[in-house]
Amino acid sequence: MQNFIYKNPTEILFGKGMIREIAGRVPKEQGVLFLYGGGSIKANGVYEQVKAALKGQRVVEFGGIEPNPLFETCLKAVETIKKEKIGFILAVGGGSVLDASKFIAAAACFSGADSWSILRENGTNVKAALPIGAILTLPATGSEANGNSVISRKSTQEKLCFFSRHVFPLFSVLDPETTFSLPIKQVRNGIVDAFVHVMEQYMTYPSEAPLQDRMAESVLQTLIEVAPAALKKPKDYEARATFMWSATLALNTLIGCGVPQDWSTHMIAHELTAFYGLDHAETLAIILPGVWQYKLTAKKKKLEQYGRRVWNVKTAKEAILKTEAFFHSIKMPTRLGDYKISAKEAARKVRERFAERDSVFGEHSDITPDAVSKIIASRA
Amino acid sequence: MQNFIYKNPTEILFGKGMIREIAGRVPKEQGVLFLYGGGSIKANGVYEQVKAALKGQRVVEFGGIEPNPLFETCLKAVETIKKEKIGFILAVGGGSVLDASKFIAAAACFSGADSWSILRENGTNVKAALPIGAILTLPATGSEANGNSVISRKSTQEKLCFFSRHVFPLFSVLDPETTFSLPIKQVRNGIVDAFVHVMEQYMTYPSEAPLQDRMAESVLQTLIEVAPAALKKPKDYEARATFMWSATLALNTLIGCGVPQDWSTHMIAHELTAFYGLDHAETLAIILPGVWQYKLTAKKKKLEQYGRRVWNVKTAKEAILKTEAFFHSIKMPTRLGDYKISAKEAARKVRERFAERDSVFGEHSDITPDAVSKIIASRA
Repeated sequence: MQNFIYKNPTEILFGKGMIREIAGRVPKEQGVLFLYGGGSIKANGVYEQVKAALKGQRVVEFGGIEPNPLFETCLKAVETIKKEKIGFILAVGGGSVLDASKFIAAAACFSGADSWSILRENGTNVKAALPIGAILTLPATGSEANGNSVISRKSTQEKLCFFSRHVFPLFSVLDPETTFSLPIKQVRNGIVDAFVHVMEQYMTYPSEAPLQDRMAESVLQTLIEVAPAALKKPKDYEARATFMWSATLALNTLIGCGVPQDWSTHMIAHELTAFYGLDHAETLAIILPGVWQYKLTAKKKKLEQYGRRVWNVKTAKEAILKTEAFFHSIKMPTRLGDYKISAKEAARKVRERFAERDSVFGEHSDITPDAVSKIIASRA
Repeated sequence: MQNFIYKNPTEILFGKGMIREIAGRVPKEQGVLFLYGGGSIKANGVYEQVKAALKGQRVVEFGGIEPNPLFETCLKAVETIKKEKIGFILAVGGGSVLDASKFIAAAACFSGADSWSILRENGTNVKAALPIGAILTLPATGSEANGNSVISRKSTQEKLCFFSRHVFPLFSVLDPETTFSLPIKQVRNGIVDAFVHVMEQYMTYPSEAPLQDRMAESVLQTLIEVAPAALKKPKDYEARATFMWSATLALNTLIGCGVPQDWSTHMIAHELTAFYGLDHAETLAIILPGVWQYKLTAKKKKLEQYGRRVWNVKTAKEAILKTEAFFHSIKMPTRLGDYKISAKEAARKVRERFAERDSVFGEHSDITPDAVSKIIASRA
């Protein structure tokens, strides 16, 4: 096991009716920025629940956070914070709204000239942030219980992430009922996103961390088991609760303690979203099997362990096939051709960008720009 | 899944050499109470590592915390804190020292006349506590990452527990190398203690919490797998690391989120320690199979699930037998007779005490004083 430092101070308020619990947790003396996305919370009753819980407090609304939250939009929110003397951000929505709230919270306290450098420097230059509370309505990213954020920049077609211990939400409400009205596509995306988050922390090489392995496999098995009901029965509370808690545990960083991690699938997939606008989960489902195939030798033992324990198959290749079959079973495509995107062109574009940045990824730092090009080309 | 609130703010510093990381985490301007037990830390080098990390700070030592920490001793530590103007407690040792530090931290800030009421009222009257840092040298109780504490009172032969969100350690160092010099008996106790902690949160009835179930089973499987090496090879770093992390995850309260819990084994076992002085884990190993046998019908489905997934057996009875056999395989007795204690007398004494307090336990609140008497009598 590798040495590690783990701290996750976010308070989780889980279950039906828990939105009302925020009442005592949002400081009364502060102006509150109520941040949300496209307005679905106005259709499903969450907006009213939040307003009721915040009754008597000075609340400034800021809607319109995009599915891949834009730097440009976040800057407007920072302006609002300064103008309105806001002291607390309440983020209500999915991972995009939560990720945006983290960048906004850090940018509002940032003393440098260019807040995009927060992304460029992976958050190492973040020294403070406004306090954040979250109400999660879309289980997927794990953003409700970590210090990670991914932000896109329209003007440059960039998509970068940062981490800071200052941007963990103080609390996150996870009420499975808020997911009942989600479009099925978003639930599917959430399942794949959570699944791949586990894989980034697990599918590397044996590293004498048997508890972390088993806990990772627990999340995978549970996601596979609950996926059909979570997709087919939108009001199945128990299925949605299990999915929601699994997505949080997939990336509250606990299962990644003390083990090597990969994350090359995410780094490559981010670029496909930046260039082609595919949903985050759609790009993950395309790239993951490609990374595994490319690193078949280096990941063989772990793929075999995964295959044996999760799918009851023997070989690494079967484990990859089972994973793709799982994605297909929930109607998630796994090829660029399924979106009429030229794999050859995508491979060239992403290779160029990584070559410019001199990027290498993966648990062995061997996913070079050329490797990325091969992986993308293999996903035609 | 039941509604739940989960927060665990303790920072875990895990791995060899991590004691030095406390240097920046203990506030420089405060007097520090360096709390420890019987002095084993002076034999194994931990004492010197701590002194080196605290160099330049005002440190007051307080040794002599007992294996079942005494209220009477804790009160002396509180006196020292007041006299020496201490602002931070550094607890170095096993669960006993950590549990003592929590009570001392709360009692030092307690405004009531009788600090024993903290135990009597299960911590609900704790409004503040001194900050605590911990260096764990004996994996077992999980005290390094929770707000629980168990304290014994010599004068009345009582053993009670309390919980408070104010007494979570700010940080806990878990360096597996600090366990290399432990007596084998303490390692055995630690394995059983951690194992039973999982069971108290798991072995109830099916409750639509498949992820929590699998994570609990992950800890059980890992403890069973690592026990032989952890016992036979004291300097096997990886085995000790896996054991240490398993013991923490067994009771950082994560696996208990959203599920019914039992804890009757602990409540009964505490009394056996209070009356007869057996080690905590020794009493757990005696009582656990008795509780399961007594509640065989109510726990049948969960015992079967456990038997199937962890031991590859079919029936609830086989699952109980496998568990006792596991305890025996690591030389942990499971009968009162093994300690020459009369089960009949013990049943009578504990029954009387619980009847006085009008106590009932268990996930169905049906472990009455009469039930306790039957359970203890069955463990002759």
